[in-house]
Amino acid sequence: MPLVRISLQAGNADSYRTAISNGVYEAMRETLNIPDGDRFQIITEHGHGQLIADPSFMGMTRTGDFVLIQIFLSRGRTTEIKQALYRRIVEKLCVSPGLDSDNVMIVLTEVGLDDWSFGRGEAQYVLNPPVWAQSKEKIPA
Amino acid sequence: MPLVRISLQAGNADSYRTAISNGVYEAMRETLNIPDGDRFQIITEHGHGQLIADPSFMGMTRTGDFVLIQIFLSRGRTTEIKQALYRRIVEKLCVSPGLDSDNVMIVLTEVGLDDWSFGRGEAQYVLNPPVWAQSKEKIPA
Amino acid sequence: MPLVRISLQAGNADSYRTAISNGVYEAMRETLNIPDGDRFQIITEHGHGQLIADPSFMGMTRTGDFVLIQIFLSRGRTTEIKQALYRRIVEKLCVSPGLDSDNVMIVLTEVGLDDWSFGRGEAQYVLNPPVWAQSKEKIPA
Repeated sequence: MPLVRISLQAGNADSYRTAISNGVYEAMRETLNIPDGDRFQIITEHGHGQLIADPSFMGMTRTGDFVLIQIFLSRGRTTEIKQALYRRIVEKLCVSPGLDSDNVMIVLTEVGLDDWSFGRGEAQYVLNPPVWAQSKEKIPA
Repeated sequence: MPLVRISLQAGNADSYRTAISNGVYEAMRETLNIPDGDRFQIITEHGHGQLIADPSFMGMTRTGDFVLIQIFLSRGRTTEIKQALYRRIVEKLCVSPGLDSDNVMIVLTEVGLDDWSFGRGEAQYVLNPPVWAQSKEKIPA
Repeated sequence: MPLVRISLQAGNADSYRTAISNGVYEAMRETLNIPDGDRFQIITEHGHGQLIADPSFMGMTRTGDFVLIQIFLSRGRTTEIKQALYRRIVEKLCVSPGLDSDNVMIVLTEVGLDDWSFGRGEAQYVLNPPVWAQSKEKIPA
């Protein structure tokens, strides 16, 4: 279900973008309990001065390799699950394409189960809530 | 009020994008009770490998004509209204520009009435709430 | 913490974009109580027909200089703070780069404190909530 927007500097190879795309997807599979194939990503490349990240805010050292990952996902994940997601994305992207962990920023935005239509004009999660959402344990009051 | 981000593959004619833009706007007019002229859309085109949609997730058959429509709108619409919106967008886009219904994905994100400034630095919906928001019936507790 | 997406027509000088970027950041510093260096912005330029804004909705006169500013920020700011933000952004952009106030639209989207990772796979605001969020006064029930 999540919709992912990945923003990075222009000028990298296809394989670089593919590595980021794969890493984010795999980390989401491992930590968010999303099903196989739930992969919807928009990757945008930005010219000089159009992807702006403070070089040192929060004690990081950010460079031109900075990548901003914004994920829209259904409400209900605990803080612990979100923390596991952040860790896993960064672990993956440090291995491939070899980013420095300081260069990976992640922002989540939560939406409702009735905020998704995957095609055919249907609200699939209204008719069939995803497995993870069927456990009351994981949904905050 | 809604802000719409429409993402599609690069390389289509202006008329193709216009048809999508018009269809989404008209469907919102018909189902969300937004006023005439409430049209704010950002259309982005993406090269190969930069608009990623699983070809079969949720039983769809997605192709290069895949279109992702993300709508930011004020909180308060019922699930039934959202479902009507999804159906109407897809109906419109199947007629023109002739998309296959499997290729239309829609994601909503809700915001508050005080989250909008339409110009002049004013929060117009704080001063004058929209008609649809004045009926308590439509606003979830 | 806020993530800012700024959309404008293509074809402007670097200095024009820089003025908008600076003005939005400074207005956020002055009204949202964000720390020095909390600046993360994505600026996108759009060709003809791809940044669509009704020319007169809500009584404005919008032109090709229309700028749409979408800000993702943590929940908890009062309506009064949001109104101050809108006013200050518009004041700044009217001075430099000299926009007309009718051409500045702002949309906010609120997220949680645990929705941010500024790097290293950590959720910095879970471990250390920002100063403004430690005052119960500012957080709606």
